[in-house]
Amino acid sequence: MITPVSTLLKEPLQEKINQKTKPPGSLGKLEQIALQAGLIQETLTPALHHPAIIVFAGDHGIAEDGLVNPFPQAVTAQMVYNFLNGGAAINVFSRQHKLDLRIVDAGVNHSFGTHPQLRDRKIGMGTKNYMHQPAMSKEQCAAAMDAGAEEVYQLFQEGCNIIGFGEMGIGNTSSAALLMSHFTGLPIDECVGIGTGSNIQQLEQKKAILRQVQAFHPTPGSPVQALATFGGFEIAMICGAIIQAAEFKMMIVIDGFIVSAALLAAAAMYPAVLEYCIFAHCSNEKGHQAMLKYLHADPLLQLDMRLGEGTGAALAIPLVQSAVAFLEEMASFNSAQVSNRSI
Amino acid sequence: MITPVSTLLKEPLQEKINQKTKPPGSLGKLEQIALQAGLIQETLTPALHHPAIIVFAGDHGIAEDGLVNPFPQAVTAQMVYNFLNGGAAINVFSRQHKLDLRIVDAGVNHSFGTHPQLRDRKIGMGTKNYMHQPAMSKEQCAAAMDAGAEEVYQLFQEGCNIIGFGEMGIGNTSSAALLMSHFTGLPIDECVGIGTGSNIQQLEQKKAILRQVQAFHPTPGSPVQALATFGGFEIAMICGAIIQAAEFKMMIVIDGFIVSAALLAAAAMYPAVLEYCIFAHCSNEKGHQAMLKYLHADPLLQLDMRLGEGTGAALAIPLVQSAVAFLEEMASFNSAQVSNRSI
Repeated sequence: MITPVSTLLKEPLQEKINQKTKPPGSLGKLEQIALQAGLIQETLTPALHHPAIIVFAGDHGIAEDGLVNPFPQAVTAQMVYNFLNGGAAINVFSRQHKLDLRIVDAGVNHSFGTHPQLRDRKIGMGTKNYMHQPAMSKEQCAAAMDAGAEEVYQLFQEGCNIIGFGEMGIGNTSSAALLMSHFTGLPIDECVGIGTGSNIQQLEQKKAILRQVQAFHPTPGSPVQALATFGGFEIAMICGAIIQAAEFKMMIVIDGFIVSAALLAAAAMYPAVLEYCIFAHCSNEKGHQAMLKYLHADPLLQLDMRLGEGTGAALAIPLVQSAVAFLEEMASFNSAQVSNRSI
Repeated sequence: MITPVSTLLKEPLQEKINQKTKPPGSLGKLEQIALQAGLIQETLTPALHHPAIIVFAGDHGIAEDGLVNPFPQAVTAQMVYNFLNGGAAINVFSRQHKLDLRIVDAGVNHSFGTHPQLRDRKIGMGTKNYMHQPAMSKEQCAAAMDAGAEEVYQLFQEGCNIIGFGEMGIGNTSSAALLMSHFTGLPIDECVGIGTGSNIQQLEQKKAILRQVQAFHPTPGSPVQALATFGGFEIAMICGAIIQAAEFKMMIVIDGFIVSAALLAAAAMYPAVLEYCIFAHCSNEKGHQAMLKYLHADPLLQLDMRLGEGTGAALAIPLVQSAVAFLEEMASFNSAQVSNRSI
């Protein structure tokens, strides 16, 4: 059950923001986030605890033959090892900002065995190829959503109230583009970008294949059915994680194209989840800008990034912390004896 | 003597960036900053030490009668006390990111007496009103530039190699607009914005007055003369500080409208200073966007802020640290045994 965010404290929160020693509105988007934090936490003194990133990794049937992806599928598993060894970008940024980083095997096409740092939520050895059948069954999709929710539940139990999600899955920009086209109604060509680095020829091939996929699955039906049809396991887990985080009234920092696609699915099921979201950045992946526009989202960062892994969220969390910190720590005109305008 | 940044290591640095475990270019602007850091420090392993912000405060003759500023001049001194008490936005963000914050009295119209945290570089009790005479003498301008340089010298001695500047001075968006119009050649109307919050009537009055000021000082001559004519003391100190920081090959994180105006003056004297600069954010102050365009600058943040104090720089420094950290800490395709594209 997702409760819409109460606006009961909107006026006193806005007044508190306006009384800080600065020209009104001069902290821009940070003021909006401070307000949102107060509304979500239903207090004039919001606070952020135990910031965390969960990276979900999964493989995609469509990626097996390399028609939509310049990197081979094996890179998904290789990058999971890289996460576990601390060598990826998300590791670096999580260390820098003291974020609790968790790596989840949502369904990588590789047997990792037991690893103390890897959280095993494997639904399967990659999804099916949606050129020929749905990426997963509805049961698998529900199980994946549950697994994402359980990961959030654990962090919530440990005190986390601000969370970002990341993903790794060779081929998953194709899933995200299909979900985007389904949920926004935009033509697939406007939803497809270069992903991890296709050239123009590869890009045209990717579009042609995804048009075929759409023709093969003309009416996926419910949001869950769409998620099951186009995959992947990591996206379904993020969808479930977002819903659970909103239910726990956590602040949800939305990363880039893939995570936003998961959010589209979550919002189709529970529109109120959007009230708990902060949009970290506008990715350079082509479809992301249109997706953000569709969501009426105003992202914090425009760094021309398109890496995934939750890297945009990791870089944006300090800005959310800045917003909450100014609300908590700045003096008011009154307390600092600073004249509040009008000469 | 400002040395242009050597491009000797450009290729090996770019190769190092490209070998990190991520699609090429996918860290966007952070990759450009990592490259710039390596070039400035002339090493494949750049490192950032002792990040610092210096806030220079000064008063403006033009502000005495309140014709260009909605807040009274007394707010400059009141905000200096607020800085010293730790209650301003720049204090909050500096604490959050462990930045060494220094507050300098460049020429506030108030006697602070001795205060352990306030650095006394007072040139005078505010500038003269440039409606009737230059804001300061050339000698005062030179002294202010020297004082700014000395503040940087001290931080450099303490190991600082990344620095941002901030300012406080009721009326200083008018100085900055005049400097911008002078150095860019843009009409003054395109350089004037609402500052700390003028309404439309006040904005038209501000433009009319600044047009008068331009008519009264048609040809200020050299860059130093322009700086002396339009002031203020805090802007001249930032100009000197920027030049000194570039001479020491520090990374200079440029804040908003006022600091960028100081940079225009510095770059008119020593164009190579620009090679040491990173642009923190695009302020909501109207002229800043055009100023950034003139400087071919691509700022990191777009948070709709317009507060000054160095707040934009303080929020951007972590992103510069992220850039240097990924270059230092991320695994390479080789070291992590991740396949580098081509199936």
